[in-house]
Amino acid sequence: MISEKMVGLVKGSSVIRAMFEEGKQLAHKFGAENVYDFSLGNPNVAPPEAVEDAIVDIVRNEEPLSLHGYMNNAGYEDVRATIAKSLNERFDTGFDENNIIMTVGAASGMNVIFKTLLDPGDEVITFAPYFGEYRNYVLNYDGILVEISPNTVDFQPKLDEFEEKITLKTKCVIVNSPNNPTGVVYSEETIKRLSAILEKKQAEYGTSIYLISDEPYRELVYGDVEVPYITKYYRNTIVGYSYSKSLSLPGERIGYLVIPSEVDDYKDVFSAASVATRILGYVNAPSLMQKVVARCVNERTDISYYERNRTTLYEGLVKLGFTCQKPEGAFYLFMKTPTEDDKVFVAAAKKYNILVVPGSSFGCKGYVRIAYCVAYETIVNALPGFEKLAREMKLI
Amino acid sequence: MISEKMVGLVKGSSVIRAMFEEGKQLAHKFGAENVYDFSLGNPNVAPPEAVEDAIVDIVRNEEPLSLHGYMNNAGYEDVRATIAKSLNERFDTGFDENNIIMTVGAASGMNVIFKTLLDPGDEVITFAPYFGEYRNYVLNYDGILVEISPNTVDFQPKLDEFEEKITLKTKCVIVNSPNNPTGVVYSEETIKRLSAILEKKQAEYGTSIYLISDEPYRELVYGDVEVPYITKYYRNTIVGYSYSKSLSLPGERIGYLVIPSEVDDYKDVFSAASVATRILGYVNAPSLMQKVVARCVNERTDISYYERNRTTLYEGLVKLGFTCQKPEGAFYLFMKTPTEDDKVFVAAAKKYNILVVPGSSFGCKGYVRIAYCVAYETIVNALPGFEKLAREMKLI
Repeated sequence: MISEKMVGLVKGSSVIRAMFEEGKQLAHKFGAENVYDFSLGNPNVAPPEAVEDAIVDIVRNEEPLSLHGYMNNAGYEDVRATIAKSLNERFDTGFDENNIIMTVGAASGMNVIFKTLLDPGDEVITFAPYFGEYRNYVLNYDGILVEISPNTVDFQPKLDEFEEKITLKTKCVIVNSPNNPTGVVYSEETIKRLSAILEKKQAEYGTSIYLISDEPYRELVYGDVEVPYITKYYRNTIVGYSYSKSLSLPGERIGYLVIPSEVDDYKDVFSAASVATRILGYVNAPSLMQKVVARCVNERTDISYYERNRTTLYEGLVKLGFTCQKPEGAFYLFMKTPTEDDKVFVAAAKKYNILVVPGSSFGCKGYVRIAYCVAYETIVNALPGFEKLAREMKLI
Repeated sequence: MISEKMVGLVKGSSVIRAMFEEGKQLAHKFGAENVYDFSLGNPNVAPPEAVEDAIVDIVRNEEPLSLHGYMNNAGYEDVRATIAKSLNERFDTGFDENNIIMTVGAASGMNVIFKTLLDPGDEVITFAPYFGEYRNYVLNYDGILVEISPNTVDFQPKLDEFEEKITLKTKCVIVNSPNNPTGVVYSEETIKRLSAILEKKQAEYGTSIYLISDEPYRELVYGDVEVPYITKYYRNTIVGYSYSKSLSLPGERIGYLVIPSEVDDYKDVFSAASVATRILGYVNAPSLMQKVVARCVNERTDISYYERNRTTLYEGLVKLGFTCQKPEGAFYLFMKTPTEDDKVFVAAAKKYNILVVPGSSFGCKGYVRIAYCVAYETIVNALPGFEKLAREMKLI
């Protein structure tokens, strides 16, 4: 009796989420310390202490009716102004509160913007490997997700194929850097070339093509890697951000969209996105958390923890003969599977209580994603299991 | 460049929300104390103190990673079990955690359930007057909202017309009691007759018709009025609840769906609703607030405040010659306009800085909705303006 669309969606429901549930069951059976669950991007570094202090201080001192009440669907003006100012200081942009819409995490931001922009049959291009939920977000509004095949040399996007696949129906392009699942950061060179292609195609077709930059991992980069702020390179850019990873608040569902004044039809896009926020049922981003992130606008979770995990995991796996893409950001490692079929590898790993997600869930077969946002001990204790896998697959 | 669907939606965007913005502008111009804004259902009674204490205690004492982290998309199991137990105690039902999905307020619950159930062209019946956003929630999934005309005698639903309008395509029926905008509570007799009609039509067509009971105002009733718990009368009932009004937390976006085990295709409906929660971008209800409402499961906002407002407003308006439906619940008063065109009355009221919403926004022309969840003084100070309106319209 459920909707036909949902029948397929329930069947093909998130492999990642299914693993999350499976991991909980395995932990129950074997003890949590004997299960190495690398399936979910659930931060393992506590939020900065400032978050807890901000919550208590705001709740104890602000007037409760306005704190917990309705506000403009786009969010509190002062919160939006604070975020705009912070972005301007960091990236030399020129935003104000009229460029920011507070959202229920990045996932709702993506839904809001697709609801705002897509007519049935409109095409949205993304670059494999990509976060599998994009397919659902686009389908929600009867759009068509167009994949660009993965470049497995360095996982920068394949721009030649991209240029060929842009059509009159291309309404949006999604980029996600630092990338889930590869941990790769798209270089400034990539962004410049991609922008030039978009400008050329817009002129050729007389259309507006919006570049949607999904940036939940922006703050999670290692060493001196720079993540270009894309609005500065391409005018029709809309940014989706989330505090899920930068402040370790994924369950609180708080993020924002940046809609620059320069985008085509800015006024309509901003108004429609505010309306979409309401009618999709979010109404507004959670009110207390809006105030909390504004107070914590310069706070970050402790990334050194993830960096240690990254080094130990990457070096451990490479030593065992696995081929890995070294992550520059986020907390995922993308590893080539010694078996052609990544699902065979995933099943083999499960024998050693190691849970990883097949690359095919991200549009890139022959790889697995290992989410290393886990306890350091989990990585250390999982390496013997990886060693057995390496032997089983004749890598050593 | 925005989606065609959105063009219309932005134009016809919520009259209520537009008034909310207009009210803020008028307050800026004339001073807040001289503007009588009855447009929005934004609670004016602070949350119970237990809410603030729960937030502080939870944040200070629970482990932050699991407190602010991802959980099952349906919500924390213990929170869902606590809510189920509380419902069982109050209404003699038999729910457990597998019947509860935590949602981002009632509006997201409605979206989740329509996403779960509706195929394009499916019909959803509702009774005028009704909350205008229902139209958008149904349209989001290409459903068709079928209105039953208002019964302006006592605002109980017109059940004869209802029976006639049920077709093979009827997938859902929405009831909302205590009702927005009338404040009327549907009687047990109404619910019994409505259920009997649905049973008969299900048998006749061999279909499943889900009754969606939207209950954000359940706890807001005056005197000894009883609000029947509808799952006990009709098997295929799904309940949408929100803490926005009962705990005065509308900005926090926290509520739940009840999907009883007895509904047709229960397993599919529950699974699909969990998936819908994720892919619509909510992912899960805000995590801290889930824990807070579980702690405050027996708390209620102070309804005596609204009751005093109700009495003063109702008696004041009736004395001036206005015809009003006496509210039994919620915090809305539905008043007949002396002019045939309710929008003419709304414009006339604005001259006295009185903001009310036309009944036509709720599918019931010739009425206005007056939201009395305001300061008591606002009502007292607005009455002279209403008196001028009554004279202008020759009621006195």
